Order: sequence, then structure tokens, then C-alpha cells
Amino acid sequence: MIDTNKIVLTGIKPTGIPHFGNYIGALKSIIDLSKTNKTFMFIADLHALNSIHNPEVIREHTYQAAALMIAMGADLNNTVLFRQSDIAEIYQLNTLLMNLTPKGLMNRAHSYKAMVDKNNASDLDPDAGINMGLYTYPILMAADILLYNSDIVPVGADQKQHVEFARDIAGYFNHTYKPLFKLPEPLIRQDAGLVPGLDGRKMSKSYDNTISLLAPEAELKKKIMRIITDSKTPDEAKNPDESTIFLLYKHFATEPEITEFAEMFRRGGMGYGTAKQILFDKVNSVLAEPRKKYENLMANTAEIDNILANGANYARQIASKKIEEIKHAMLG
Amino acid sequence: MIDTNKIVLTGIKPTGIPHFGNYIGALKSIIDLSKTNKTFMFIADLHALNSIHNPEVIREHTYQAAALMIAMGADLNNTVLFRQSDIAEIYQLNTLLMNLTPKGLMNRAHSYKAMVDKNNASDLDPDAGINMGLYTYPILMAADILLYNSDIVPVGADQKQHVEFARDIAGYFNHTYKPLFKLPEPLIRQDAGLVPGLDGRKMSKSYDNTISLLAPEAELKKKIMRIITDSKTPDEAKNPDESTIFLLYKHFATEPEITEFAEMFRRGGMGYGTAKQILFDKVNSVLAEPRKKYENLMANTAEIDNILANGANYARQIASKKIEEIKHAMLG
Repeated sequence: MIDTNKIVLTGIKPTGIPHFGNYIGALKSIIDLSKTNKTFMFIADLHALNSIHNPEVIREHTYQAAALMIAMGADLNNTVLFRQSDIAEIYQLNTLLMNLTPKGLMNRAHSYKAMVDKNNASDLDPDAGINMGLYTYPILMAADILLYNSDIVPVGADQKQHVEFARDIAGYFNHTYKPLFKLPEPLIRQDAGLVPGLDGRKMSKSYDNTISLLAPEAELKKKIMRIITDSKTPDEAKNPDESTIFLLYKHFATEPEITEFAEMFRRGGMGYGTAKQILFDKVNSVLAEPRKKYENLMANTAEIDNILANGANYARQIASKKIEEIKHAMLG
Repeated sequence: MIDTNKIVLTGIKPTGIPHFGNYIGALKSIIDLSKTNKTFMFIADLHALNSIHNPEVIREHTYQAAALMIAMGADLNNTVLFRQSDIAEIYQLNTLLMNLTPKGLMNRAHSYKAMVDKNNASDLDPDAGINMGLYTYPILMAADILLYNSDIVPVGADQKQHVEFARDIAGYFNHTYKPLFKLPEPLIRQDAGLVPGLDGRKMSKSYDNTISLLAPEAELKKKIMRIITDSKTPDEAKNPDESTIFLLYKHFATEPEITEFAEMFRRGGMGYGTAKQILFDKVNSVLAEPRKKYENLMANTAEIDNILANGANYARQIASKKIEEIKHAMLG
């Protein structure tokens, strides 16, 4: 439980509709935070530019990401939801922070190093295929984190470095000029445990074993019915923790429901067909309303535009004040 | 002679008052261009940030650079004079162009390579002391060049790469999205010939042999009288092209005056003291009015602010239209 006075900052990548694994792994906890804490939640369309060169795709994915967060329950009373590219100040801070960032810091970025390793392994130039958007990504990220005076940045364990870099860069600035930046804290997400895909392996696009979070009812049912199980008969007792059905159910049901479902597995007498039906009913009842809300929003993107514009107006009030202070400190 | 319909773009580094060598080498030709061509002339305060961390110094140098260009005759009817940092769109274009710039291009930048060579020669980490402002400098430069639809960028031979990079990056953008950028042409400055310092070597701060362009009359006289000459007597004939006095005079006098002065050297009968007095009178008469104008402006920085604000307003009209097109092409 974090202090509810803390300001949370989170960026949502506009990468299309997430699957169960994405949602359970990250989005769910962010949405939960938005119910207790003031949350700056931006759709990171500028970060998408280093890989997506189709403006229609970026725009569509931006709408999807915004609609999804709203549909899944992000609390718009606490949440400033906006499009990153709408904030003129973010480009300014990005450009200004370049001067405070040692190149050596960028060389140590995990994602950059991974790309260099891959190039080296293929006997390519170390920087082959790497553009400056990718290379300077951590600086833009630092600007995102620092511009709105955020205290807390929820991240997966593998993204902790982004927050550390933001702290480093903020520290360089504070030391060189004046202490204008808060040093944000990473909030490392608790591991949600394995979210298995249809084949029992980790749910992942690359395994083609995913269930889309907002799949229509018929598709959802079809996918769930296709979950691979072992060949135990209905009568046999089963270990719930070895069942994809149970492992998915856990993330959508209440505690008593989870306990009861586990018990039915252990006791025997429930076949996998029945278990799948129970999983489907639960997931479908949880997602029916968000799905409808999402579809309504996507059918009326003017409403999303409106929400994003309001968010941008609010965010820019904070950002413009901040950037004036920063420019004054640097440029007089 | 360039086509007077062409738009010229030039950035002035805010590095304090230039000496004769700086002026003759670069500023003079830029000011001449501003009399025939629409010229976007910006004081490059953002570029100064990667080395100057004192905001008062940057602000003072910015005023000095602006006042100097006006005092030396930049034609404000043709010239859009503005402070780089006042253009919100420049930060935007800088950030956006990162995604179109291969990292390999930056690795080939002359200035970066020179720093790496220096580090390697000292057995330091290749990137020691290099910040990302320095490393990404060519992208900000490309943004400067491309934002105002400029045709012509006057540069010294050693800066040609900046324009080539701007063309490369513009080409990547035009190819990836749509042809929104003109490909600007470098205008390589004609070599003004050696501008000798007081000791006869090239005038340079590092030799401590400079004459400030706006030195007060007494200081100007003192410096000129201190020019080192050979020991020829007044009666002896002298080769004007071997005389610092003549080589400086050339840049301030008219053609007939230059011819006459050269003749006096060759013919003999003029001692160096007399020659220095002639040089002083000429330089002082050419610079007296600019010096006064400069001092008046520096005593009334509100007027400079006003000129820079007008310039920024004008530049932003062009820039905001451009950036909207670019953002639309990239982000939808």
C-alpha cells in the first residue's frame, strides 16, 4: 500500500489491445493505483515513433490504449489521462535534459546494450539498425517522469533502470543548477505469477497462445474451450496450481470463489469441460461491461479526444510552470 | 551572388564579443547576405547549454550576439532575428527527428569523433566527458535548418557536414513519411584569407593576439599600435601582403583605398607608425557607429528583448505550421 498523497506517473504504450497476460502483468495494478492516487497516465505515442512509422496505426492504437484504460476502470477523478505528444513541454524537457545526460549513461541502458549484443552476434556494426529515438529513449522517459513532479513510478522489475536513470539525470540537474526536480521512486510491481496461455506456456504473442482482453464473447468462449489440459477424467482429483484454467481464473475471481474452485479441482468430480465453462462465465461476467464501454468509446472517438484534451490541459498547467522554472535556471 | 529569393538560415553562437578574426571569417558575410535575402538568424542559446552552465552568462552573451549583429548592420527588414530557445517548435522537431536519425550518422560527426580521438589518446573511456547534448548536437542543428524552410545555409568549410546531415535526415523523413522538407544547400564561405593577430600569427583567442571588434577607441588604438612588424625603416619598400597592418586594413577599406595603401607600402617612404595610424583611423571610422549602436542597445536590453520577441513571433508562425504538418505525418 503506498501513501495516497503520492503522485503516480505511468506511461501506456500504444501497442494495440492487450492480452490477458499484459493486463494481469501490468495494467491491472496501474488501474488499481489510479483509484487511490493522483495518477498521471499518458499514452506514449512519442515512444512508439521509433518503431511504428504509420500514423494511422499510432492514432488507432492511441485511441485503443486510452479507451482500454477507461473501460477497465481507471478512475478519471484521480487520473490525468493524456497523449504524450500533446504536451509541448515534454519535447522541451527532453531537449534540455540531453545536456545533463552523460553519454556513458545511455551506453549502459539495458535495451541499447541488448541491441548491440545482437548486432555483434550477427557480425554487424554494433549500431546497425539503431536510431537515435531508440538510443535517447531513456532521456525522453526521464522527461516524462520528471515533468509532473511524480513521486512514484510503477514498473516491472526489468524497467527499474528507467527510473534510476531519471533519478540520475534529475540529480545532475539539481546539482548543476538548482534542486527543481523531485527524485521519483520506482514501485516494483509484485510478480503476478505465471499467466499461462492456451497451451500452458507463458501467454505471449510470440507463442500465439493469447486471449485478447476484449475479445467478443464468442471468441472468448472458443479460446477458453481450446485450452490444453491433461487427460485426467472428470472423477480424478486435480492439482489446481497445475491447471491453466485455474491459473487464469485466479486473476478474475474473488477470494471465496478462488478457494471454492480450487477445492472442486482437488476433490475430483469436475471435468475440464465444466471447469472451462466456469472460467468462461467468470471472465465473461467481469469483462462484459468493460468490453461494452470500450466498444462505445471506440465508436465515439470524439469522446476520447475530449478526455485526452482535458487531460492534456491539466498536465500542461503543471508542465508549463515546471518548464519555465527549468528554462530560467538554465538559460536565464 | 545567390538568388535573392532564397531563404537563408544562420545561427549565431552566443560566445561573447567576437574579435576581428571571427567577424571577418564569418559574421561579415552573413550580415552582407541579410541585406539581399530573407534571413532567419537565431542566437543559438540551446547549443550553448552543452558547455555553459551559467544562465547569466548565456543571457548576457545572447544579448551581446543580438546587439552585435544589429550594430554591425544586419538588415532587420529582411532578417528574422530571434532566440533559439524561444521557439517551442524547435524542441519538438529535435525530439521527433531523433527517430529518423540512424545512430551511425551521429557516430560519424566530426566534432564527436574528434572528442573520442582525444579521449582515446589519453587512455580514457571513448565517451568520457561527452554529454548527450554534444552528441545529438547535429540533430538539433538539422532541426534549426529544416524548421523554417530555408534554402541556403552559409557555413565555413569545416561545418559543411552539419548541412549534409540535415539533408540526410530530411531525406529519411521525406522517404519514410512524405516530402515535407526542402533539402537545403550549404553555401561555403569564401576563405577571407589569413586574418593575422597582433603577433602576425592567425588571430585567435588561444594565441592571446586578438582585437575585440567593439573595443573602445583607446583600446583599439593601443592594440593596433602594438602590432608587431619587421624592422624595415620608413624609407624601405615593403610587401603589403606580408604586413599584418595591410592584411587587417584590407577588410575594412574600399577597393580604391586598399589599392592606394598597398601602393604606399610598395613605394617606400611610409613608416609602420604611420601605417598603423592609417589602419586605426580607418577601422575606427568604420566601427565607431556600430560601437555606439551596440553600446546603446546593451544599455537598453528591453529593446533587444523586443526585437527578439518580434523575431520569435514571426519565426513561430512558420515553425508552428511546419510542425503541425510534421506531427500529422508522423502521429496522425
